[in-house]
Amino acid sequence: MDKIKLFVGIALCSFLFSANAQVTYYDAALFPLIGKISENTETRYERLPKNLKGSCREPVWNLGKNTSGLALRFKTNSTAIYAKWEVFGNHMNHMTDTGTKGLDLYAWEDGRWQFVNSGRPQGKMNEQKIIANMLPCEREYMLFLPLYDGIMSLSVGIDSLSRIGQPDLSNFQTGHPIIVYGTSITQGGCASRPGMSYPNILDRELNREFINLGFSGNGKLDYEIAELMATRHDASLFILDFIPNVTAEEIKEKTKTFFQILRRDNPNTPVLFIETAIFPHSVFDKSTYGLLVEKNRLLRQEYEGLKQSGVQHIYYLKTDQLIGQDGEATVDGVHFTDLGFYRMARSLKECLQDILK
Amino acid sequence: MDKIKLFVGIALCSFLFSANAQVTYYDAALFPLIGKISENTETRYERLPKNLKGSCREPVWNLGKNTSGLALRFKTNSTAIYAKWEVFGNHMNHMTDTGTKGLDLYAWEDGRWQFVNSGRPQGKMNEQKIIANMLPCEREYMLFLPLYDGIMSLSVGIDSLSRIGQPDLSNFQTGHPIIVYGTSITQGGCASRPGMSYPNILDRELNREFINLGFSGNGKLDYEIAELMATRHDASLFILDFIPNVTAEEIKEKTKTFFQILRRDNPNTPVLFIETAIFPHSVFDKSTYGLLVEKNRLLRQEYEGLKQSGVQHIYYLKTDQLIGQDGEATVDGVHFTDLGFYRMARSLKECLQDILK
Repeated sequence: MDKIKLFVGIALCSFLFSANAQVTYYDAALFPLIGKISENTETRYERLPKNLKGSCREPVWNLGKNTSGLALRFKTNSTAIYAKWEVFGNHMNHMTDTGTKGLDLYAWEDGRWQFVNSGRPQGKMNEQKIIANMLPCEREYMLFLPLYDGIMSLSVGIDSLSRIGQPDLSNFQTGHPIIVYGTSITQGGCASRPGMSYPNILDRELNREFINLGFSGNGKLDYEIAELMATRHDASLFILDFIPNVTAEEIKEKTKTFFQILRRDNPNTPVLFIETAIFPHSVFDKSTYGLLVEKNRLLRQEYEGLKQSGVQHIYYLKTDQLIGQDGEATVDGVHFTDLGFYRMARSLKECLQDILK
Repeated sequence: MDKIKLFVGIALCSFLFSANAQVTYYDAALFPLIGKISENTETRYERLPKNLKGSCREPVWNLGKNTSGLALRFKTNSTAIYAKWEVFGNHMNHMTDTGTKGLDLYAWEDGRWQFVNSGRPQGKMNEQKIIANMLPCEREYMLFLPLYDGIMSLSVGIDSLSRIGQPDLSNFQTGHPIIVYGTSITQGGCASRPGMSYPNILDRELNREFINLGFSGNGKLDYEIAELMATRHDASLFILDFIPNVTAEEIKEKTKTFFQILRRDNPNTPVLFIETAIFPHSVFDKSTYGLLVEKNRLLRQEYEGLKQSGVQHIYYLKTDQLIGQDGEATVDGVHFTDLGFYRMARSLKECLQDILK
């Protein structure tokens, strides 16, 4: 009986798919983009507002062009989904091109965001069938954009006889974003595909908007970024995850000021400080181990200092269990793989739920 | 007190490291290589014996040049470890270059194989410091070779004042290898670094030699490979993990013969059949879903047929829980990330321990 059902299902699919062989593309500008801190950007697909050009450090500005944390929302009843996208063309030897400059599609299915498939890049100009052979049901989709590259153009393709339209954002918390500030790891290095950075995993798990302000190698407590974050009075939480990028001196000099900029106009918004993970290779590299332990100690000292001066709504996450203890969670001792991000998201989810409840 | 210890430790390290600033390279040919099915190969760093050249299909022969599953063993008391290696220069857009053509170093520490760090490739010719700042203790090392590329030359560098020597293989089971036959997934697509393919994870977890006969896109039940596997009368287990690469017809036509070739000269060696994972994107791609379910059904039928004809020492692994149910374990719906391989290794480890006890 099951075999008959399967056969009828496959036959029905084959008919539907062959009836929908043409692809029609729609400019992604038609659909909402989540994960931006400001709409006032030079082009649509970037993270930093144009007023920061020239006023923040150049590497930070350039990394703002990377689309980490941005995601397109739409709904369609198409049986296949395609994408065309143009990127600058970055490449790194410890991250997949799919993570760096690819796309990653999820659908809302049975009350959760379910992976559909990734869009694998061929170069600067890309056109890919992401998924095919679906039943023609209307579904909500979320398309995560590249973690370490910029998007110059993007369009979404569907079967020409299907419809595509505005998403239902009513059950997705876009009004009170969680804003994450940090490093290459925060930006998503080195997830295998865009959906596997820890902010993007949590975005799905908590079904609420995350804004990713991770800047590879440049989470150096720039006050311009704190000023930018502080403009979002609707933020439900600020996460500060910058320790791997700062020196011991910078922690002592800049943490308190960075925090005070956030807090000045947002007296009740919780702030979570995250230690750096004790990177797996530091089991052997004693110099790195000493430095990581010392930097975490200094962060703790800053946090305790704030607590003792009566500051409220601040939280602290120790990293003992953040990515497990088996040493297997990174690609290069430092940057997390999907295994590392999955573990971190699991630890962090509990912590965030405690803070936000 | 802890701070003083840390300071003294760092100071001692700094002294030791500066005293050992020169690097001396040793040809890896001096040290044993594990994971080869035969020593009778064209060059040292490849998987298939030269008698198969021209007699097996060309893509299989070419993939035999990829070094997946090969690992170098040595011991040293050096505080830093370097490598020089030359590769053909493969690249794939859904796998890191570190996984494709990089190196991956582990050390035996506290009774287990502990990740040290990976060697990240820059191109065809590579030279990398893998780890530094270690205490000068003598340790056993295992260096996993590229998963999807060939090695033309390899040497290991240490501090010039340190020593490097032959490993102690006495507690590592090299005599009774587990031989795994299969597909791109078996070969390690798409682990972030060589140590994270499932056979390499299990190699460490069970501390015994695995021989990787995964051939990307070409696990098509070639009888020449069965003949090759059958020559290893010392094998403790044959794992057959080929389903993603074969058609329904090929399963029916070739599975029994492939098995009989293995069994003919190895009457008591257990054989484990593994279903294909139900790939995450097939939640939506109904055509793929139907095909995967059908192929698993046919494999089960072959297995049951053997059982009913009185064949002993055969085992079967269903894939319900193999890589989890959340859809997050692959980069492209098919090929496993480190998260997928980690989950698969965990499931498979239990199964292997049951079979081997």
